[in-house]
Amino acid sequence: MKLSAMRLALAFRFSTLLLAAGLLAGCATSGTSSPSSSLLVPPERGNGDLGLVIERESGTLGVLDTTARTRLGTVAGLGDLSHASVVFSRDGALAYVFGRDGGLTKVNLRTGAIEGRVMQAGNSIGGAISTDGSLIVAQNYQPGGVKVFDARTLEQLADIPAVVDGKASRVVGLADIPRNRFIFSLFDAGQIWIADLADPRQPKIQKFAGIGKQPYDALITPDGRHYIAGLFGEDGLAKIDLWAPEPKVERILPGYGKGQQPLPVFKMPHLRGWAVAGRHAYLPAVGRHEVLVVDTQTWQEVGRIPVAGQPVFVMARPDGRQVWVNFAVPDYDTVQVIDTQTRQIVQRLKPGKAVLHMEFTPRGDAVWISTRDDHRISVIDTQGFKTLATLPAKSPSGIFFTSRAARTGF
Amino acid sequence: MKLSAMRLALAFRFSTLLLAAGLLAGCATSGTSSPSSSLLVPPERGNGDLGLVIERESGTLGVLDTTARTRLGTVAGLGDLSHASVVFSRDGALAYVFGRDGGLTKVNLRTGAIEGRVMQAGNSIGGAISTDGSLIVAQNYQPGGVKVFDARTLEQLADIPAVVDGKASRVVGLADIPRNRFIFSLFDAGQIWIADLADPRQPKIQKFAGIGKQPYDALITPDGRHYIAGLFGEDGLAKIDLWAPEPKVERILPGYGKGQQPLPVFKMPHLRGWAVAGRHAYLPAVGRHEVLVVDTQTWQEVGRIPVAGQPVFVMARPDGRQVWVNFAVPDYDTVQVIDTQTRQIVQRLKPGKAVLHMEFTPRGDAVWISTRDDHRISVIDTQGFKTLATLPAKSPSGIFFTSRAARTGF
Repeated sequence: MKLSAMRLALAFRFSTLLLAAGLLAGCATSGTSSPSSSLLVPPERGNGDLGLVIERESGTLGVLDTTARTRLGTVAGLGDLSHASVVFSRDGALAYVFGRDGGLTKVNLRTGAIEGRVMQAGNSIGGAISTDGSLIVAQNYQPGGVKVFDARTLEQLADIPAVVDGKASRVVGLADIPRNRFIFSLFDAGQIWIADLADPRQPKIQKFAGIGKQPYDALITPDGRHYIAGLFGEDGLAKIDLWAPEPKVERILPGYGKGQQPLPVFKMPHLRGWAVAGRHAYLPAVGRHEVLVVDTQTWQEVGRIPVAGQPVFVMARPDGRQVWVNFAVPDYDTVQVIDTQTRQIVQRLKPGKAVLHMEFTPRGDAVWISTRDDHRISVIDTQGFKTLATLPAKSPSGIFFTSRAARTGF
Repeated sequence: MKLSAMRLALAFRFSTLLLAAGLLAGCATSGTSSPSSSLLVPPERGNGDLGLVIERESGTLGVLDTTARTRLGTVAGLGDLSHASVVFSRDGALAYVFGRDGGLTKVNLRTGAIEGRVMQAGNSIGGAISTDGSLIVAQNYQPGGVKVFDARTLEQLADIPAVVDGKASRVVGLADIPRNRFIFSLFDAGQIWIADLADPRQPKIQKFAGIGKQPYDALITPDGRHYIAGLFGEDGLAKIDLWAPEPKVERILPGYGKGQQPLPVFKMPHLRGWAVAGRHAYLPAVGRHEVLVVDTQTWQEVGRIPVAGQPVFVMARPDGRQVWVNFAVPDYDTVQVIDTQTRQIVQRLKPGKAVLHMEFTPRGDAVWISTRDDHRISVIDTQGFKTLATLPAKSPSGIFFTSRAARTGF
């Protein structure tokens, strides 16, 4: 019963709002076509200001230009892109797309070409790229575990099944850490592992056991220091200080979670969306209409900010001055903006139906918001909150800018 | 007397160690040649992992590949590049190079072509690019003031002479701040100005007077919040909190400077090199063999770390775990590494003669160090401190990676 409830919640979280999919039948395709035979980007133009949007229903990617605020083209043939995520090569030209169906696709944004594609698992939940750009790692639900690929050829270099007590565990919360190492959480086993891939065909594994029940997602802080896993099976969070001489698991925020008198949770919030702004982290409360403020020096809660619904993503503008929040149903048409200096809501926006993701331009002057059921992306000025542009996108979910290539944990 | 001493110190600071130039007569050119007629970077390759090195004696730029750790080519014809600096377009393909001779050159890293060049002043000291990438601003010694250019055409859009009481002031410490505004310091007038270039042909200027004597350099913190100017004419620093409802100038660190019993100062340290790591800033002491530790919440000094010489650049690895320091003569062959957790020196390196600059790869796994008198760049692993590669460069000074395009104040 508990496991099935958990599965339901996870399915709900990761495929989000499948009930809305029916609305999409017969919706028009966007006007762009796949220009796989020609360049999307002229040879003399750079790609530091480009990005991608995931179009989940059609299995396509839209290539975005954040300077002209236009859509340069479409790449098709990526399979099931529900809950797909993307990491970029060091040069920002290659996107590695992890599909829910286990597909790992290497796409060149500059040419629009698919340079490689492997079906690496039955059910995948994202991936990461090594600091040196040479390794791609995928985390899987089915068959569980983690697989390591050559970033150039997509050849499989290692398989790390994440077996504990004879049982393969689903893996979540994968993040890159320095020196071609990766950290991830084992949902079924309640462990955190670090894989050292200095020799990628011979991974060395460090294991942290007994971290708590059912880690369901995790994040790494922007400086790469703290890895924090959320626990589905109990309240509180598991944290590892990777800079400690002997890293170990600590529990923080014992009240974080569903609590003793749980409210209905419409969608487990994304931990990876956690905002760290200055010395404070801003966290989505689970099931409550609140954003929690946590002091990252003591890891104690120091405040709560009432918001419009159950928060899903809580994301800091790159300068940390603002935190933007979107919400689960029924408030998923709303975005609120918190000023971190006053901890007040300074703006409430309704960019469209089913806000699924927000991505800031690297210097934070604009945010790009996908509204799945309105089939568009809105580009919003973060200072005056004007809508600067809207772009067509078919059931858009995640938006990923190439500036992520320069960041740990992205 | 005082002015001439100041001029001497500034000349010394900005052109650094001219006495060593004689050593360069007859030195070999690097093996690369200028491929201006062909692409340096293939159309399908991205430019997120590229960079430039300034070759001051030959007026050339070396184009660098931080993934392969190679030099892709050379761009010639940039004039006097002593103390040259660079900003990048949003797409990372275009470098705007500010030469000491007043030349502003637009270089395309991907093609190796010079796309435009104007002589905009008699003596220039650097520049900045607006958040939206549309405006280039140069700060000048001769004739003083600031000029604004169209980033595409290099057409001059505005001239801001920085005249106070009928006298044109030299301008230093220019930085971009959000919404196409720029902040800078007037050396002769002792003021800080903010130019709002929402309409670039009609700049609106906000002036802060009486900030202290002779601001000689300035920095903006990585979040764009605090602008801090060093004062050549007195001790202490001038700070403006740009997030305050009514920004105003405050004095901080009253003991910072040459002090009451000045030691000989071989080179005024670069403020722009200041490291902000976690809640602490690490500052080069003026004339003393120390790095100062300052709490950025109180702006009080909280510690001093003894180092090998007079620090010039004090730079944080992107994750803030380490601070790297280079030194003025006679210790300019040395680099020291501070662990910010213990505030201890954890490594002393001698990468070569006349260490002029250090640039970290965006995720901090390596640092690239220019050693002018050994005519090379050393690529050093920041974890194990091994030299990963050395590349030829003729009298190299500044190294600039395209990942700067995503950062405020770079």
